[in-house]
Amino acid sequence: MFQLTPHTRIRRSPYFDATVAAGVAGFTTYNYMLLPSGYGDPEGEYWRLRNGVSMWDVAAQRQVEMRGPDAGRLARILAPRDLSRCRAGQGKYVALCNHAGTIINDPIALKLDDDRYWLSIAASNILFWARAIAAERGLDVEVTEPDVSPLAVQGPKAAEVIAAMFGDWTRELKHFHFRRADLGGIAMILARSGWSKQGGFEIYLMDGARGAQLWNMVAEAGRPWGIAAGAPNAVERIESGLLSWGGDTDDATNPFEVRLGQFVDLDFAGADETVGIDALRRIRRHGPARHQLGVILDGDAPAPPHPVWYDIEAGGRKVGDMTCGVWSYRLSSNIGFALIARQIAPGARVEVVRDGRRIGATLTELPFS
Amino acid sequence: MFQLTPHTRIRRSPYFDATVAAGVAGFTTYNYMLLPSGYGDPEGEYWRLRNGVSMWDVAAQRQVEMRGPDAGRLARILAPRDLSRCRAGQGKYVALCNHAGTIINDPIALKLDDDRYWLSIAASNILFWARAIAAERGLDVEVTEPDVSPLAVQGPKAAEVIAAMFGDWTRELKHFHFRRADLGGIAMILARSGWSKQGGFEIYLMDGARGAQLWNMVAEAGRPWGIAAGAPNAVERIESGLLSWGGDTDDATNPFEVRLGQFVDLDFAGADETVGIDALRRIRRHGPARHQLGVILDGDAPAPPHPVWYDIEAGGRKVGDMTCGVWSYRLSSNIGFALIARQIAPGARVEVVRDGRRIGATLTELPFS
Repeated sequence: MFQLTPHTRIRRSPYFDATVAAGVAGFTTYNYMLLPSGYGDPEGEYWRLRNGVSMWDVAAQRQVEMRGPDAGRLARILAPRDLSRCRAGQGKYVALCNHAGTIINDPIALKLDDDRYWLSIAASNILFWARAIAAERGLDVEVTEPDVSPLAVQGPKAAEVIAAMFGDWTRELKHFHFRRADLGGIAMILARSGWSKQGGFEIYLMDGARGAQLWNMVAEAGRPWGIAAGAPNAVERIESGLLSWGGDTDDATNPFEVRLGQFVDLDFAGADETVGIDALRRIRRHGPARHQLGVILDGDAPAPPHPVWYDIEAGGRKVGDMTCGVWSYRLSSNIGFALIARQIAPGARVEVVRDGRRIGATLTELPFS
Repeated sequence: MFQLTPHTRIRRSPYFDATVAAGVAGFTTYNYMLLPSGYGDPEGEYWRLRNGVSMWDVAAQRQVEMRGPDAGRLARILAPRDLSRCRAGQGKYVALCNHAGTIINDPIALKLDDDRYWLSIAASNILFWARAIAAERGLDVEVTEPDVSPLAVQGPKAAEVIAAMFGDWTRELKHFHFRRADLGGIAMILARSGWSKQGGFEIYLMDGARGAQLWNMVAEAGRPWGIAAGAPNAVERIESGLLSWGGDTDDATNPFEVRLGQFVDLDFAGADETVGIDALRRIRRHGPARHQLGVILDGDAPAPPHPVWYDIEAGGRKVGDMTCGVWSYRLSSNIGFALIARQIAPGARVEVVRDGRRIGATLTELPFS
């Protein structure tokens, strides 16, 4: 852990004061915003997410709004996925790529209307990217970062909390679908979404001045189910096989290498003008050079934090990288992801090189079972 | 100060271990890399920079390399500044703008050769931006982030240290000029440059495996002049009027608002294909809506850190923002920058609203005298 020096360049979330009041213990930075990383009880926060319900300030998951007659066309140009049957109120997970087919972000694309889309982004500057493409292609669309700040409610009890707040209709909301759902005079959108596999919702606050009020409403509604403040959980997301763009990817990673091929379409109406489509078609034809597997380290003591990529070796030579790692409370092992030569298969034995030491490890399919 | 949780998404510098050994006390994040922010003695570090010599890990100041037949053309397309007489070995400060004339980064453009340029960037993703423009315009140029990590040597004694290391020719190097200058078998480029007004150099290490070695060479060479580890210094840069892109700018700031008009050219051969040139011409014609001034707060006790923009009011209504603030050791006042309506002139009295309190303040020209 290091001290993070405040700077006006690194923005605060509308929920910042509430998270401080809730005892936030650490932050990361994400889209040049402070993103809470925990509240001082890592294991308790993990089990609460697995068994109960947790609330997360994920305002750093910014929205890139595309609005205007060419909004849908810009979405199609940016995302190699067929969005033609996507209805207003529906979201889809998309792998944005550059012209070389390298993944540059993995947002949820939310269709608000025929002329209005949001990209709810991971940590890279898609605002600049989308503006560059839109302007260079002469599209009639405005690209902005609106005042929209998600608050996630995650865990098996999340549906109870959300139903108590918004009503029983929310139980029928399908994954990645969303609906405008103002409450207490606060403008917001409710989506079934979130960066865990424990089920849950994201409340997209549309008025940054009302952060504390919304936070308190959720805390109050969740009290019967023992809700408490948490944060995107590294242990759960690694156990569940969720990608962290920028953490698990490098400047040459394509979607097929990191299990996102299922979210990539290569032939749909208009695909020929999609950025990177030719490169992606070529990669799919030849197959990617690497793939993403799970790593289970030998040993049964929790390893220290995993702040950099570790080399993975087999037969004395480097075959890939271990891109993240945590102590799994559920599996009682140190686990993580490998981005590794495609020839190395699940089940293979490898060595992970950490601080000059070699640690035996076994590769496995993702997600961890 | 907050705890920063390690994540593989936030990279370490080649000098990281050396900065830890030197007692680094805090970090910020910059281009998704850890950037040391101090070593525990803010006032000592300030006076060392003003009177002696300081060494800074500024590897987070990444390079965007443009290489190929169209490298010069891409530089001209990205930067609204006449680079036609820029020679190999020369750098220029440029205000990169988007199509609306909003400043998106303020790098030094270094011309290494006719077909090779670096943009030595502030904290925004110009790698993606430059690739988008290059690909959309069909240019024959490769855009990459090379293994290049600047180490800054700053302060009035910096020239002595650099001459002791590289030779007396370095004393004649002009501002923003640079030269290949390998030492101890380490590939590097030496530039007279740096984010202070105290004079100094940046050593662009071109081999990330040699960070500790270079760090130790500089520490050793600087010993007679009392060199020690420091970091980009908020107090000195504000006293000196240096812009912090992203801290002192927002998503509508143009170069003319923040005193960079002198670095913007609007009519040069090829300017018509430069991104944002029409918008910049329009803004210069009408004049910008805001300008940047210094703020001197009333009172003589150091204020707490300045983590967010504060409103500036005059006559009871908001007229601008105070975008940064520090206690000036030299002026014995709390000072900072205002981004403020152009009608408000230096000398005006205003009120700064901080945590609900109103603090009287006087506006002044920049830099502070």
